[in-house]
Amino acid sequence: MDKEKRTEISNLGEFGLIDMISEDIKTNHSSSIKGIGDDAAVIGEGDDLRVVTTDLLLEGVHFDLSFTPLKHLGFKAVAVNVSDVAAMNAIPTQVTVGIGLSSRFSVEAVKELYEGIKLAATHYNVDIVGGDTTSSRAGLVISITAIGEVKKSAISYRSGAKVNDIICATGDLGAAFIGLQILEREKQVFLSNPNMQPDLEKYPYITGRQLKPDARMDIIHEFKEMGLVPTSMIDVSDGLASELFHICKASDVGVAIYEDKLPIDKQTFDTAVELNLDPITCVLNGGEDYELLFTINQDDFKKLEKHPDIHFIGHVTEKDSGKYLVTKSGTAVELKAQGWVHF
Amino acid sequence: MDKEKRTEISNLGEFGLIDMISEDIKTNHSSSIKGIGDDAAVIGEGDDLRVVTTDLLLEGVHFDLSFTPLKHLGFKAVAVNVSDVAAMNAIPTQVTVGIGLSSRFSVEAVKELYEGIKLAATHYNVDIVGGDTTSSRAGLVISITAIGEVKKSAISYRSGAKVNDIICATGDLGAAFIGLQILEREKQVFLSNPNMQPDLEKYPYITGRQLKPDARMDIIHEFKEMGLVPTSMIDVSDGLASELFHICKASDVGVAIYEDKLPIDKQTFDTAVELNLDPITCVLNGGEDYELLFTINQDDFKKLEKHPDIHFIGHVTEKDSGKYLVTKSGTAVELKAQGWVHF
Repeated sequence: MDKEKRTEISNLGEFGLIDMISEDIKTNHSSSIKGIGDDAAVIGEGDDLRVVTTDLLLEGVHFDLSFTPLKHLGFKAVAVNVSDVAAMNAIPTQVTVGIGLSSRFSVEAVKELYEGIKLAATHYNVDIVGGDTTSSRAGLVISITAIGEVKKSAISYRSGAKVNDIICATGDLGAAFIGLQILEREKQVFLSNPNMQPDLEKYPYITGRQLKPDARMDIIHEFKEMGLVPTSMIDVSDGLASELFHICKASDVGVAIYEDKLPIDKQTFDTAVELNLDPITCVLNGGEDYELLFTINQDDFKKLEKHPDIHFIGHVTEKDSGKYLVTKSGTAVELKAQGWVHF
Repeated sequence: MDKEKRTEISNLGEFGLIDMISEDIKTNHSSSIKGIGDDAAVIGEGDDLRVVTTDLLLEGVHFDLSFTPLKHLGFKAVAVNVSDVAAMNAIPTQVTVGIGLSSRFSVEAVKELYEGIKLAATHYNVDIVGGDTTSSRAGLVISITAIGEVKKSAISYRSGAKVNDIICATGDLGAAFIGLQILEREKQVFLSNPNMQPDLEKYPYITGRQLKPDARMDIIHEFKEMGLVPTSMIDVSDGLASELFHICKASDVGVAIYEDKLPIDKQTFDTAVELNLDPITCVLNGGEDYELLFTINQDDFKKLEKHPDIHFIGHVTEKDSGKYLVTKSGTAVELKAQGWVHF
């Protein structure tokens, strides 16, 4: 290493750093069907394959224990991994759980955290098959790896979107981000005046979306029942715009989405306005919604047309057409993506 | 959670905590062949199975960056997981890599860490198929999950040891622990007088064992070639005594090992004496050797008898006979195990 040169990670950004790390990584084993570059890796032989995904959750970066109940945190740690399995159109089957605990944690606190983990394991029908428990000098560390099962022909990669496919999103978007703003605002109020109780009852939906997201396995099971395989899929963890960029890059296509089609909950919208935030920006860049963003062939539209919780937000275009949001007034605005900006 | 009760984790200890966490965890899927309680979980259907294992490495607990080169650390992070795969008598095939980086890390430092990870991936022939890169408020966090392949009939569980089996250990033990003592001593010398350069050249073997352990995949490949399946196996990460306890508990047996059979390197022995440490205690409780401890049926002894790097250290006894070390003078001393004591 050239000791004299120092490049800050912030100069590269998240995606630049990941590109640098992965540039010369190749796979060797025939069982490594899909490596880096999707929501989960795909491994196995023949038609019955497995997906594998790992997520790290670090105190002070991904969660703030001053307003995050440990039980919810345990649930969320499993849910975000299940969401990555779902994004491959796979069914989760096992998880391993790595936990780093600082000495300020009591046995009762660990129990509380594990109750959430076990609740999620039951909810998503995954087996906890292993893990690692260690001490931490540096706050709570949670590392979960989830494994899922999928038929080779049923996998939805990010790379399968085709021109004229319909872009779909489940649920509503932006709520988890707005919920986080409320939680952080109420924390500041509490810190400056500990006699003030946090005013969270006013915002049950959006704070719930932040604290206890639910992976959309319901949708994956429905796909299975109706025999539908999305041409591409990703979960919305970094924000809609960022996820659309991933699909465009992997599929070598462009996208057009429509402002008036974007799913936004009323409490999310009203609270964004209350906080002087643009609701559409929250939908595009909010993140942590853990909804599914996917594309379908137009022939499959009939199957989903009447689904109460799937929204048709745009369509796939030629790569050269770029990535655009068409506003309510009909103006096409170029989309911008951002990864995390923690550094 | 009862807010009034607070039990310190140190009251339970590592194994007590893990017992508490895992007590009501059950598996549901037929593909969950083996859950918590071995070096790795076993999943799959039919005869071709997969093992999965996760290890967390946290700065300040598992490594000290003031004397750990990042490249070695990257290598070690993969090696310790491969060692868990080896302990199941499986061949590693894939890893996922989760990294939490604090802002004091430069891009060059991340490259250095990844060079070590990639070097280990090449060395053990495993594909890096995924991961998660994030920022950390709290020092470097490395979480690696390794996946391996094994035939159902070739798996060595901790639970298969039978009375009269021979207990075997690879390589030598205690070196990594003594190496760590030297590294920490030289760090203190350096801190109290920064003009003093660390005196590490005197101890190349033991410091190397601490900084760059090598998982014993060579042994696993030899087993495969000679058609030998150990009746039980575990890797030596916490110390020989602790690993023997795991085998005894899982197999419902006792053990007798012999002081004069314990493999200890000369530099380890001499340095232990120099540091006023009992060499045998270092072998029994040192940890981080990443050698293999296994048992074989007496009928397989001929196959390994002349192996230059496998040592026959004792035999399996009835459970009621207990767990004993027979000293050079012929005295039987009851073994004591300890997990980590980081809390």
